[in-house]
This record gives sequence, structure tokens and C-alpha cells, in this order.
Amino acid sequence: MRFMARSVLVSGGCGFIGSHIVDRLLLRGDLAELVVVDNLWTGSRSNLAHVKDARLRVEVQDVENFTSAHRFDEIIHLASPASPPWYMRDPARTIRANVVGALNLLGLLKPGGRFSFASTSEVYGDPAVSPQPESYRGAVDCTGPRSSYDESKRCTEALLFETRRVSGLDVRVARLFNTYGPRMRIDDGRAVSNFIVQALTTGALTVHGDGSQSRSWGYVDDVIEGLERFFWRDRISPAGPVNIGNDIEVPVIEIANYVRSLVPGSRIEYREPAPHDPSNRCPDLTMARQLMPGWRAGTTYQDGIRRTFEWFREQLAAPSVAVEPGPREISRALAG
Amino acid sequence: MRFMARSVLVSGGCGFIGSHIVDRLLLRGDLAELVVVDNLWTGSRSNLAHVKDARLRVEVQDVENFTSAHRFDEIIHLASPASPPWYMRDPARTIRANVVGALNLLGLLKPGGRFSFASTSEVYGDPAVSPQPESYRGAVDCTGPRSSYDESKRCTEALLFETRRVSGLDVRVARLFNTYGPRMRIDDGRAVSNFIVQALTTGALTVHGDGSQSRSWGYVDDVIEGLERFFWRDRISPAGPVNIGNDIEVPVIEIANYVRSLVPGSRIEYREPAPHDPSNRCPDLTMARQLMPGWRAGTTYQDGIRRTFEWFREQLAAPSVAVEPGPREISRALAG
Repeated sequence: MRFMARSVLVSGGCGFIGSHIVDRLLLRGDLAELVVVDNLWTGSRSNLAHVKDARLRVEVQDVENFTSAHRFDEIIHLASPASPPWYMRDPARTIRANVVGALNLLGLLKPGGRFSFASTSEVYGDPAVSPQPESYRGAVDCTGPRSSYDESKRCTEALLFETRRVSGLDVRVARLFNTYGPRMRIDDGRAVSNFIVQALTTGALTVHGDGSQSRSWGYVDDVIEGLERFFWRDRISPAGPVNIGNDIEVPVIEIANYVRSLVPGSRIEYREPAPHDPSNRCPDLTMARQLMPGWRAGTTYQDGIRRTFEWFREQLAAPSVAVEPGPREISRALAG
Repeated sequence: MRFMARSVLVSGGCGFIGSHIVDRLLLRGDLAELVVVDNLWTGSRSNLAHVKDARLRVEVQDVENFTSAHRFDEIIHLASPASPPWYMRDPARTIRANVVGALNLLGLLKPGGRFSFASTSEVYGDPAVSPQPESYRGAVDCTGPRSSYDESKRCTEALLFETRRVSGLDVRVARLFNTYGPRMRIDDGRAVSNFIVQALTTGALTVHGDGSQSRSWGYVDDVIEGLERFFWRDRISPAGPVNIGNDIEVPVIEIANYVRSLVPGSRIEYREPAPHDPSNRCPDLTMARQLMPGWRAGTTYQDGIRRTFEWFREQLAAPSVAVEPGPREISRALAG
């Protein structure tokens, strides 16, 4: 058996998903070099502080401007904010990270190399069908207040599949649904982390609307297992796109109540519905199950939330943790 | 009355639509300077050869790389191939022209300046409703063989409306439907110009499928009149997007038969349907009529085609005309 030493680039490798991907990559015996490019916009160096591995090099800069004389065998493009308050605050930067980032990275791939991309369930917009299969074309308002994220993911998918069509690029595109777990930002702004941080600080959990809107909550270990198998571990030939996430729908209020049960004395406060929040989002996982037999997002929300809760409690207890200035909405939510 | 001398930049100003826009801009008394940025990918210097006006300067380069110390009062972003064989051949370049081009040009606009963009009916994909109002979210396959064009237009719309949301950018976005007329490329590859050039050269007009698929064909003068009014002439405050085109649907075979009637001895040859060709496309013009009272695409297809036919006949008769190498599909079509 011939040993092929591989060089891999991960954009956004200091982020929530990215740092877990880095952990998995470093378990590979065939990995010779791992370059992480991250501008620390929503990522954090602390997510990789535990790594002691000489193969890892972190380059702090915008992915769209990263240059390298070296070409990579595999590129995994994850650089992008993923939470609405973050990408809604800087739409042009969001588009640059995704689209211009991908255009730039394509030039750093060795001929025959593989380009993997984390797309999103947001390509489906406010879906008219549930669950959403990959063939569903979506219902995104391309002029709406969340469109910079949705459309930059759609456009990057287009770039990759079109490049595959004209020049045979080896592509893997995963569409990630709601994911939560350790290493989310304290000021990420999405429901699970908001509820946990609020329970641990103010004691008041903010629920928008009546909480009946459902989401499929994927625990990060399950999602990363799917990404690892799809991006490099399994011998999969289809390029995707493939949905990866949890297909068990749970109403927001049920999550809030579970978090509340972990902190005696905490309470729920109802607010106005969030604007342009899709009413449902649930993956059709038929293709993922065909491509990766045995894979499932099997962690119950109770288990996943307890582990995430413990991680946030440690973070908030650590003397070194200072909440970096986040979007106003989040600061307000945490202050309130 | 105070005279405000305006500086305007038009990307893609050597193109089919762009050169007609340039003609209209040069009629403005308040225009001090007009810079055209065009890489001549699908545009041609000959489209502006008739212009003798010291206010016009043509910069031959990619719009995404254009730099200028000068800032502009108005930017009209038209740079993009618009015909499927052209954009399908180089999808990454198509995305760069539209999305990276817009990102770059935004940095060249004066504070308070206006940014106008020519989007497309292709944002609606293969539509489930007809006619298509601007509120229709579309049915684009973001992984399909036409997606580089469709998604780069959608993503650029997102960039502009999102920039408007966060920083008050003065935006005008028009969605152009099928447009034809003088200054289309001989090897453009779309139906009207194909039929005319085929009638004038081989005598064999190629119809894909049975020709029953309908299109709304907008004559260029009518479309340009709408763009002029929307982009600068009328006092319009809504940013759009607004559909501009002709809402009278005519089957492809009717157009072919009309062109055939202009060249005795020419004939129709039927071929396989074009892949991923939308089955219908027709603008809902309610908004355009509200914003621009009296505007309509009033030129009949017979009048429009006769004028276009005369223009192509002169082009083909001119000794200087050499057909530049175009996409293979078109060369084949012309050869066959």
C-alpha cells in the first residue's frame, strides 16, 4: 500500500464547525500538513488552543485574499458567519467570504484535488415542502434581509457544480441544517446557545413568537461525523449536494423548557417573532443514508444540550473569558 | 436652476445593451464624464465606433479589477455575458463579472451615489407561475448547467439590496427579459440573432424542439427606454427589482417563420430541445407600468425583426467583419 502524504487547507478552521473538522483531520495518518485560514471574524483562536500538532498552521487573514505558492490536495471551504445577526450586519463581507473566498481557493487546489464546501439549509429559503429533499429548488427572496447568506451559499454551489461541469473538478457539497454544540460563540445568537447563555447569566430565556416554530437540531458530533465521511473518509463518488442534519423536529419552546429545567429559577420571556424566520426546516436525509450507510444524527436533544450546557458553564466560569463585542441585537439580548 | 455635472461609469458599455445605454447617456446635458469599463469578452469596440464625444473614455479591462482614484456619481453595472453558450462556457468568469464586479464597483461610488444593475428574468428559473411578478421567488436549480448566470445575478441583487438595508445605498435593479436588436453578436447564440444569421448565411434556421416554446421578445429600443427612465430619467424612488421587457408571448416557431419569410429559399431544420431551456418566461409588468406611466414595449416583433435583420445584413456585407471564434455550439450551428 502506497502512503500518500496529503496537504489540506481548511478555511474557517477556527470556527464552530471548522475547529471540530480540524480535530478530525488531525486523526488522519495520511495528513502531512493542515493550513487553517481564518480572519477570526466569528471564529476564535481558543477553539484550536488545545491542539498540539506540528502539522497544523493557522493563517489569520481573509480567505478571499489568502495567497500561497503551495497547492493543496484537499480544500475544505467553511469560512462564513452562520448566524443571522452576524451575517445580517455585514452582508458584503459575507458574500466575499463565501463566493470570492471560493473563487480564490479554487486557484490553490492541485490538479485533481478535492474541493469540499459547507453549504446550508438556507438555500431552501422558506420552504414550501417539508422535509426538504436536495432536488427542491428553494424559495429564497434574493432581495430580502437574509439574502446575503442564502444567495452567497447558492452562488458558491453554482460556482462549484459549474466548474465540475466544465473542467471535472472533484467537488463535495454538504447542506448543513441547524447545528449546535460546544465551541459556539457565547454571542452566536441562535436559539440553543442563546437559551443556555441566558439561563446561566440573566435567568431569562427569550422566546420569539409563541415558540411553536420547529427546527431540526443537529448535535455537532453527529454533523461532523457526516461531514468527515462525506468529505474524505468514505469512498463516495457523488458530489452532492447532500443534506446533513437531524430530521427530528422539535419546537423551540420544548428546547427552551429543557434548558430552563437545568437552571432552577430561570424563566421564559416571550418576544415578537423574528423577522423572516422560516416557519419550518427539516432535512430529507434519504440521500445521506444511501451515501453513508449507518450514519444518523443519533444524539438526543437532551444529551446534546446537556453537553453544550456544561461547555458553556465552563466557559463562563473561566476568568479569561471576555465576551467580544458582538452585534447589537445580541448584546442587548444578553443585557436584557 | 443649479447645474450638476455628473460622472458616470458603465461596466459592459461595449456590449449589446451597454452600448445603447451609452448612446442615451451621452444625450444628457448634465453628463460631464462617462467611463466605460469593458473587457471585450462579449462586447465589441465596434458598438461604440460611431461615438465622437470627448466625454466618453473606454477602459479595456475586467470590471472586477478596475481601479480608479476618481469616484462616480452613478454606476451602471451591465458587465456579464447574457447568452447561454457564452456564460455556460466560462461560469467562474461569469460569476466574477457580476458578483466580484459589483463588489469592486461599490467601492468606486461617491457617497450618496446611485448604483444601477441589470439583472435578469433568469432569476425566476423555470417558473411555476406565468407571468412572473417581481415577488415570485423563482425556481432556479443552483447546481444546474445555467446556474452560474442565474445565481450570480441573484447574488448581486442580494448584495445590492442588503447594502441598501445596512447603509442606505441608492439602488436601482431591473430584471431584463429576452431582448434582441442591432448590436447583438453574430455568434450571440440566442434565437432571433441565430435565425437571422442562419437565414443570411446557410439558409437553414435551426429550431430546437417543436418550436412551440414561447418567449416574450423585447425590442432593444423599448427595453432601453425603460432602463433609461428607471435608472436616471424619471423621478422614481423604489429601488426595484422591476421587470422590464415585452409581455406578449410569441412561439419560437412563429419568429423562425417570420425570419424565413424575409429570405426566399431559406428553410427550417428541427433539432433536439435545448437542455434546461425554460418552457415559458413572461414578465408581469404591473410594477413597471406603475413606476413609468406610459412606458411599454410597443415595437411589434415584425418591426423589430426587420430592423435587426437589416442591421445584420449590413454587418455581414461589410468587408471588415470577421466572426470572432465563439463557443463551439454556435460555430457548429453556423457551419451546419
